[in-house]
Order: sequence, then C-alpha cells, then structure tokens
Amino acid sequence: MQSSKYVHVRVDSSQELIKETLMRLFTIQEDGAEREVDERVSKIARDFLRIKDVSSDIEVKSLFDKFKSSKIPVDPGDVGDYIDYLAENVVAHSTRTSSPYFIGHMTAGLPNFVKPLGILLTAMNQNTVKMETAKALTPYERQILAMIHRLIFDFPDGFYEKHVQRKESTLGMIMSGGTLANITALWCMRNHQLGPRDGFGGIEVEGLPAALDHYGYKGAVVIGSSLMHYSFQKAVDLLGIGSRSLIRVSADRNNRIELPALRRTIEKCHIRKQHIIAIVGIAGVTDSGAIDPLPEMADMAQEYGIPLHVDAAWGGPVLFSARHRNKLAGIERADSVTIDGHKQMYLPMGIGIVMFRDPHIAKSIEKQARYVIRAASADLGKRALEGSRPGTAMYLHAAFHIIGSKGYEFLIDEGIRKTNFMADTIRMRPEFELIAEPQINILIYRYIPEPLRERVARGILSQNEIARINRFNERLQKTQRQIGHSFVSRTTLETTTYGKGVPVVALRAVIANPLTTEEDILCVLNEQVKIASGMA
Amino acid sequence: MQSSKYVHVRVDSSQELIKETLMRLFTIQEDGAEREVDERVSKIARDFLRIKDVSSDIEVKSLFDKFKSSKIPVDPGDVGDYIDYLAENVVAHSTRTSSPYFIGHMTAGLPNFVKPLGILLTAMNQNTVKMETAKALTPYERQILAMIHRLIFDFPDGFYEKHVQRKESTLGMIMSGGTLANITALWCMRNHQLGPRDGFGGIEVEGLPAALDHYGYKGAVVIGSSLMHYSFQKAVDLLGIGSRSLIRVSADRNNRIELPALRRTIEKCHIRKQHIIAIVGIAGVTDSGAIDPLPEMADMAQEYGIPLHVDAAWGGPVLFSARHRNKLAGIERADSVTIDGHKQMYLPMGIGIVMFRDPHIAKSIEKQARYVIRAASADLGKRALEGSRPGTAMYLHAAFHIIGSKGYEFLIDEGIRKTNFMADTIRMRPEFELIAEPQINILIYRYIPEPLRERVARGILSQNEIARINRFNERLQKTQRQIGHSFVSRTTLETTTYGKGVPVVALRAVIANPLTTEEDILCVLNEQVKIASGMA
Repeated sequence: MQSSKYVHVRVDSSQELIKETLMRLFTIQEDGAEREVDERVSKIARDFLRIKDVSSDIEVKSLFDKFKSSKIPVDPGDVGDYIDYLAENVVAHSTRTSSPYFIGHMTAGLPNFVKPLGILLTAMNQNTVKMETAKALTPYERQILAMIHRLIFDFPDGFYEKHVQRKESTLGMIMSGGTLANITALWCMRNHQLGPRDGFGGIEVEGLPAALDHYGYKGAVVIGSSLMHYSFQKAVDLLGIGSRSLIRVSADRNNRIELPALRRTIEKCHIRKQHIIAIVGIAGVTDSGAIDPLPEMADMAQEYGIPLHVDAAWGGPVLFSARHRNKLAGIERADSVTIDGHKQMYLPMGIGIVMFRDPHIAKSIEKQARYVIRAASADLGKRALEGSRPGTAMYLHAAFHIIGSKGYEFLIDEGIRKTNFMADTIRMRPEFELIAEPQINILIYRYIPEPLRERVARGILSQNEIARINRFNERLQKTQRQIGHSFVSRTTLETTTYGKGVPVVALRAVIANPLTTEEDILCVLNEQVKIASGMA
Repeated sequence: MQSSKYVHVRVDSSQELIKETLMRLFTIQEDGAEREVDERVSKIARDFLRIKDVSSDIEVKSLFDKFKSSKIPVDPGDVGDYIDYLAENVVAHSTRTSSPYFIGHMTAGLPNFVKPLGILLTAMNQNTVKMETAKALTPYERQILAMIHRLIFDFPDGFYEKHVQRKESTLGMIMSGGTLANITALWCMRNHQLGPRDGFGGIEVEGLPAALDHYGYKGAVVIGSSLMHYSFQKAVDLLGIGSRSLIRVSADRNNRIELPALRRTIEKCHIRKQHIIAIVGIAGVTDSGAIDPLPEMADMAQEYGIPLHVDAAWGGPVLFSARHRNKLAGIERADSVTIDGHKQMYLPMGIGIVMFRDPHIAKSIEKQARYVIRAASADLGKRALEGSRPGTAMYLHAAFHIIGSKGYEFLIDEGIRKTNFMADTIRMRPEFELIAEPQINILIYRYIPEPLRERVARGILSQNEIARINRFNERLQKTQRQIGHSFVSRTTLETTTYGKGVPVVALRAVIANPLTTEEDILCVLNEQVKIASGMA
C-alpha cells in the first residue's frame, strides 16, 4: 500500500505498537512521505473540483444510511485507508459549491492561493485569542482590520495611524461568521447604551431587567425590514429581549425597507418607552440582494439619535467597484457594519467581520482573565465573542494584497454584469417571469407553466393559480437539485407585484463565481425548461 | 521568479490584464504550477515547525511597526511575492505553539493528517449550515457527534440507532470554539426552562424580563466555582442576566468547588426566588487542570432539579483513558457538556463541541428562514448559534478513525505521566515550589528566590515577601517569553496554601505535546533557573 510509509497499516493494539504509531503521527515527516499523501489528497481535491455537476444523485436516505454507526473506533487506523474512505463516501457525495453551475447559494470558486495559505495556517496553528499564542498574527490582524475599516468608513489617515495598533482601540473583529458579527454588533450597542451611570453598574453587570428599570424603559427593541437575516432572530433571543422585540418593518416590492413605516415604528417605540438598540440596514438582502435606502436610514438614525447597524455580509465588497459603490452610499455613516470574508471576498468558510465606527465601543463587552488576556495586554481576545480562534486574518490579508481593490472591482462588476444578462434572458423568454429587478448580483424569478402564461401576462392570476405555480417551482427546484447537474436555490417572498402577504415561491440565482459564463447561465435555465416540460 | 507561472508578476492596472490575472487566480491549476507553490509553502511550514525555539526575540514595538500601513493595495499582486512577505514578516515572528518547549498554553503538535485534510476542507469549502451546500457532510457530522455523545454518556445502542440521523434530534453541535459551546449550552437551558406555558410565549419570544415575571422569579443565575472559564462571563452578559448573576462559589486549595458553599448558594438563590439556569462543573480548570467533584455536583443538581453543565473543554478526552477516566466520573450525568477539538483532541483551531443528554433540548433555540433551513429540512443550521460554518467535522471524524480511542488513551496517559515527572522534579529542586498537586496534565508552580527559600520551607512568609515572589515570577515568565527559547504561561491564584484572597502568581505548564520529552521539561526548568540567577 502506497501510504504505508506515512502510518503503519492497521496495527494491533499492543502498547508498543500504539506508541510507535502515535509518535509517528506527530513527528514531522520527511519530504517524501509527506508529499505522497499531500499529492494524493490534492488530486482528489482537483478531481472533485474539475467535475461541473454540482453533486451526485444519491438519494438522501441512502446517504444517511452510510453514517449510521456510532461506535468509536478502538485501534489506530491507516491514513491512506481513511483517505480512500473519505474519497468514496464523503467527497463523492459532497456539494460542488464552486461549480460554475452552482449558482444558488453564496459560495463561489476560491482563488488558488487559499490552498497553500490553508496549509500554512494549519501548520502554524496560531491562536489569536492572545499574543502569547499569536505573536505576529496579532498586529497583522489589526492591520487588515484597519484596511477594511478604511474601505467602509474612509476616515483620514491620521485616524488609522492612531488606532491601527493601539491596544485600547478596536476597529473591528474577525470571527467565524456573519451571524456572530451581527450578534456582536448588537451586543456592543446594547451594552454601550445601557452602561454604568449614577451608581448603576451597567447592563453588563446588573442584567437587562435592572438596566431597563434604571433607564426607565419598558423594553428594548431592534428595528429593520422584514427581510433581515435570521441571525437577528438569534441575536434578540440571546440578548434577552425576545423575538417579539425584533420589529420587522414592511419592505416594498423591491425588497427595500419602507421609510414611512420605519419612522412610524420608531415613534411608536418612543411612545411605548421602548429603547431602540439599533436600526438595521441591509446591504444585500439574502433573498434578493436588495439594498436598503441607507442614506435616508442614516438620516433617520441621526435625527432620533439611534445607532445604525448595516448588515453588509453579502453586499459589502460592492464598495470596491467604482461603478456600483454608490448603491451602498450611506454605509459610511453606520455605527457598525457586518461583512463576510467567505462571501464576496471569495475566501473559505468561516470568516465573519464586524467593523465599528467608534474604536472604543467594544470596550463595553471587554472581559479579562488571569491566565489569558490580562487587562494591560494587547490580546485580541479581550474584546470578542469567541475565545480561541484561528488566524484566518491571513486569508483576508493575502486577498487584499493578491487580488487588490482593482481585482475585487473586476469580480463585483462581472457578477452584476452577468446577473443583468440573466435578467435580460429571463425577460425575453416566455417560460420565465422576473420577480424583481436585480439590484446587484442576486436574481429572483420563476418558471410559469405554459397554460398559465397568458394569465400571468395579463396580471389576472387567481390565488389558486398562484399556489399552483408555487408548487410547480418548488418541485422544479427539488428535481433539479436531485439530478445534480446544476443548482439554483428557492425562497418564498411575501411582497411582490402580486401584493403583500401573498406568498410567492421564487427561484434564486446568486451570480458570483468568476468561472460562471453566460453560456453556463443559459445551461441552467435550459435545464429548468427541460425539467419543467417533463413535469407538465 | 519561480512562482510566475502561478500568477503574473505585478501587472499593470489595465482592464484586460486585471481580467486575465483574476481569471487565472480562479482557474484550477495544472499539477505542475500548483505543486510548485504548494511545495514552497510546505517547506516554509516544515522549516517553521522544525525549529524548537518558541519564537523570535523581536520586540513587540518593532513588530507592531511592521503592520502600521492601512492603505488598501490597488493592483493585483504576485502570489510568490506575498509568500515571501509572509515568510519574512509573519511566519518568522509567529509563535511555535507546537514546539516541545512551548508548554505554557493549551496547544500542542498536531498529527500529520490534518494538513492533507485541511487541503481537502479548503478545496471543498462545504457550508454545513444546510444540506444544499453540504450534502454528505451533514450526515457525516451527525455521525461523529453520536460517537462523541457515546464517549460521554454511553447510552444503549438503541438510543444512537434512533437519534444519529434523525433530523428532529440534536445530540450535539460543532462550532468554532468552547466559548460558543458554553454559551450555546446555557442558551438552550435558559430557553428550555423558561419556555412557552399557559398562554405565555416563552422567553425566546417575549424576552427575559417577561419570562421572569411570568415564572415568578426575581432573577436568573448561573452557579459554578470561582475558577469558571471567562466564557461564562460572556454568556451571562449576552444572555441578559448580567455578570452579577454569575455566582462564583469558592474553590478549595486543590481548585475544586467547595460543596457546602455550593449548597448554601443554591438555597440562598431559592430564598431570593432566583431561577438557577445551571450549575457549572469544571472538568479541567484552565488555570490548573482541576476537576470539580462531579458526582456530588450531579447529586445536588438532581436533588434540587437544576441542570448540570460540565465544561470539559480541556479535560473531556481524559475519558479515553482507562486509567484516568474515573477522574471525570459524574460527567455522564450532566445535561450538557462542552469539549474542544482543538485542545486534547489534537486538532487545529477552532473546533468547539457541545453535547446534550436530551436530544430535544436544542429545539428551544431553533430558528428558520425561507431561503435556508426550512422547517422540515435536515439542515444543521436550524439549531445552532453560528450560521455558515466550515466542515471541521472532518478533522474529528478522521481523528477518531486514525488515532482511535487507544491512540487517544496513549496521548492522555503520556501527558499525565510527564506532568507527574515534572511535579516530582519540582518537589526535589529547592529553586521551585509546587503550588498544587496536579490532577491531570496542568501544573502550577513557582520559582523561589534563594534568600526566601528557608522562610518558604518554614511557612512563615510575610505578605510583603509573597508580593516580592509574585513580582519575581512575573518578571521571570516575561523574560523567558521574550528570549523565545521556551515558554510556560503564568496565572494568579486566589486560593493556595497561603490562604484565601492572597494572590499568588504561579508559573503554569500544560503538558500535552507528545513530542515533549522529560529532557525537554528539564530544559525549560533549567532555563528558568538560569534566568532567575541572572535576575537575583
């Protein structure tokens, strides 16, 4: 067996052999033995990536049956055997999230350099919770955070010179994902606003009920459009204010928050003596890519003295594009912004980022411990939701230097250009209906079965017919997914040209992969037409 | 330049060149070009790992100066150039967390197979938030969770057959770290206990103040020893109950919770009508490795009907050892358990795990969204603190199969054996004082300057002398760290043989690296003696 140099083939369990096997597993290998396994795995990875089909057509039931045993293996096993097992059972049935035909979720191909960086990251295994376990990574992470801060807020040079490496300042934080970023932003806001005062120890010490009492509030809320990401449901639950306090203002047909409704909501909260932790603006609704009217939201936030958080997990990198960055105008007035590295920065899972206008606001969540993150330290873990944390800043730092702002601009512009191509195609083809004009690179549309096309065109669908089309599109999406050749996702919209509160099932395309061509897009649509004609 | 096949050397910014550069960055490389960069980076990684010194002796100030610029690079840059930059500025000054001389924090060498797996994980870039982006990874992750559940709770086979792939069941969750695991456990407990009832919507919907009102409580608390990890400070802050509601019961000289004090605390809370979300038992105190008296805590939890959460982030894998698993007796009676993959499972940052005795308790934090994680789906993201999340289950699954329970047993036994060797050495050497008997593989001790040794032996140190020894050990630790040859960490203990409330600065060794030999341990101690004699 090829890999037997690497680790002994299935050994027996006698103590000496186990010791020998284990010590070999932990010893740095000579080039040759290491290269052999690496090349084999690299080949498995390349073969996986080269196939354009998005997945195998294995049925979920039989897939689940492969992973039923829960017995813990007793003896050490051979690395080569395990890699065989992985290739056959896991890799073969994994989702090709980077296929050019996989245009249904927020994943795309990754740039080549992430693989070697991944090797380095794993080998170095830094723990960015504190400098003692991440000596260079600590200032290095702070540097990339300052760059991202500049991308969003673009303060004068002097601001960055002062704060970039100042341990009392927190320009932003890197964490495992956008959900944690949104939670962290609201946590900081809540603690900052309901902080210590006049003998009151602050919400951090005394808790939410006492804080509301002390400040004379009858409750605390977060306000955003009905299209806020579900991470905000988690945030309000965790933070103790409850999902009832996540106020979802209606959105218009273009999926943007309705400003008069937002104003009425704010005023109602004031009358009810509810404290508003933040208004949430969305820069890239998960469903449709819509961008809230941020300048007007910033005006309103300023008028009422309420913090503005912008969830730009998806849309943030549009700021790199000279042509499209105006769509995000107003984001520079936010108090905090979420942006994801693993989305439109084209980096691996999971890299969430939260940025703060005020470098001191994160002080409100600061924690210390004697064995790590002492008060006077420069440790990043002092102000963070997470504790031990890998050095994923390396991906961001590398991407900024290897892709560059011009490179990101190209990626963003291309995605939007191809989305418009797809929208134009859909407009011209009788089989499809465009549900909303795309604002960036997410497109929602649906298939209309032939007998109903005329009624759609005349705008006279009955509720029953809408429900029939919904069921049709749901089946269509599931069938396409099961075949595994190409993939779009689906969602259900509450506000469309069919009115408010009429659920419309939509197909959803996310066009971010630079390797997805116009031809690939046509292939995906043609496959849908073909499946649909078989279903009719 | 060697790497120029991979990406163009610094290109100019004209549109065509940018397009060409970017498309090449995203195209799967032929073997040759890819191998060249991979080998170069692998060599950098190997060279980094081969050096035994734990870090360079660069001063923090000059290190920070390297990362001051916050200008965003404009043009795409060359991969090779960036790797040169990384090697010189980041890798060279990173911390060798896996050096055999780095025995100060909870990192160790990693087994060889994590590198090829890291390649696969990055290339496949699955998003385990939902099956549509992680088809095979979803049941595969559930399988390893069932194995870990078995390790802790060891229920009958039928239990696992029923729950392992049942989408309504959550045996546990994988997330980015132990902090999130502890937070998730308390979040589930809180929501489960203060759930919907008699027309009350439950805390998830109505929030903490309304829930306390409805249930007739005057507050809610979490109780554990004074040595609880600082993630519990984050948890009570986030959950809205405030740090005042984290009740820290005193610990004895062996760093274990004092049971009579725990009982008094519980009864006081009952009198004050405070709801107890959970009692926290610690299996491996971060400071000292101490393990709380779990059987007695489980008895008390049962007696009073309070959930027991065990933070076994560090100590959990001791369960693999036939010789030592009795130290964790009682953990099988916990309601939830935290355990970290990146600690004593010898896997890369960051892998946190929470396990639940009751497979339905996580229902209390379930969230849904229309575009992902629909109600009827098998998506793992339905019940989780995080959203998008990488497939780190692969590391765990591989480790269980390649290391096996016998391999883990060897690693655990070796760590404890070598810790006892270090303790014996310290006992015999007049320069050092052992501060507590090690319970597993964390050791706390200190250096005693020569003039004070006799007074230490006679137990007649004055407060001033204790403070002097504290300052001495702080300087000693900092000097050793700055030299960069070897490393132990330091902590401050509140309860030692010197009495309660007398802060004692201790040196702290964590002996987990299988490559750390007895000789290496002697080297670290000898270096301390040498540094100390220069300081005296």
